[in-house]
Amino acid sequence: MRLLEERILKDGEIVGSDIVKVDMFLNHQVDVGLLCEIGKEFKRLFADANINKIVTIEASGIGIACITAQYFSVPVVFAKKGNHRNVGNDIYAGEVFSFTKGVTTQIGISKRYIQPGDRILIIDDFLANGGAVSGLIGIIQQAGATVEGIGICIEKGFQDGGKKLRDAGYRLESLAVIKSIDDGQIVFG
Amino acid sequence: MRLLEERILKDGEIVGSDIVKVDMFLNHQVDVGLLCEIGKEFKRLFADANINKIVTIEASGIGIACITAQYFSVPVVFAKKGNHRNVGNDIYAGEVFSFTKGVTTQIGISKRYIQPGDRILIIDDFLANGGAVSGLIGIIQQAGATVEGIGICIEKGFQDGGKKLRDAGYRLESLAVIKSIDDGQIVFG
Repeated sequence: MRLLEERILKDGEIVGSDIVKVDMFLNHQVDVGLLCEIGKEFKRLFADANINKIVTIEASGIGIACITAQYFSVPVVFAKKGNHRNVGNDIYAGEVFSFTKGVTTQIGISKRYIQPGDRILIIDDFLANGGAVSGLIGIIQQAGATVEGIGICIEKGFQDGGKKLRDAGYRLESLAVIKSIDDGQIVFG
Repeated sequence: MRLLEERILKDGEIVGSDIVKVDMFLNHQVDVGLLCEIGKEFKRLFADANINKIVTIEASGIGIACITAQYFSVPVVFAKKGNHRNVGNDIYAGEVFSFTKGVTTQIGISKRYIQPGDRILIIDDFLANGGAVSGLIGIIQQAGATVEGIGICIEKGFQDGGKKLRDAGYRLESLAVIKSIDDGQIVFG
């Protein structure tokens, strides 16, 4: 998506050789006009997927998912972080391992909000090693629902999350794929 | 806002004498069509406030803020939770004390995203004792920006956050005010 790539080049902040911060427009300050264009593009890409629900994970996925959901006229369910064991048996629980931070986070979604037969589009801001998406897929599978698609704003193509998901047969669409960061220059793939 | 009150009566889950869970449509599963109506109502209520930015706090405020921001054509900035001291001097930091949970949470917003002169609308899902809104006001004041309004979806009128903010002169609009929960019946005020 040219608009997103241009924005990453203009306002993204490169940190070292593998991090691009997009705090300025995507996940701290949020350019909602850009989000609307992102939402329309996900609708175009998944128009035939007949989804009935969008699933994401707090916090930075929520705004993108809600704006996108308008164009599909479906509800959003966001996985909550933290240990929900005290909630009892009402939660589908999963784990997200972050390679960047080296920590595992518990996530959960109430069993009431994912049903067998749900046709789900997963939306998130970033895909690197795929920890968050894998955690959500695990929850959706526990519920007996199906993952019809995965829509990502920015994929780090030099990490293996995208390859693993595509090899596993998931329909993954990333609006911008960063192939490499060389000498402070972002190369899209 | 009649639509929201009706939805609270239909799908809200009363827990004890002072908690109404709205997981079904507002802060776990999200009815984005309802959020659009909420956003339009905030626009109607604050049409003359000439705001240039919406500020909220992760996680459940983000979707409401992003949908609302469309009607104002302004960006959203969301405060992040957690200890950001290691980020150095680039953060306006605040604290949110939750009377419900009895814990204090650190929040922060990058100094780059709130400037002196910003005219800010604070948006959040719930107002009870006002801890989250007070934390955001503290950050906005540190930045030399002004709070032009506070838009809340559900105010618990039997707790003192709303009174404190109105007494302090803030322009606070709550779309549904729960006056009491008596014998499992919600009474709006």
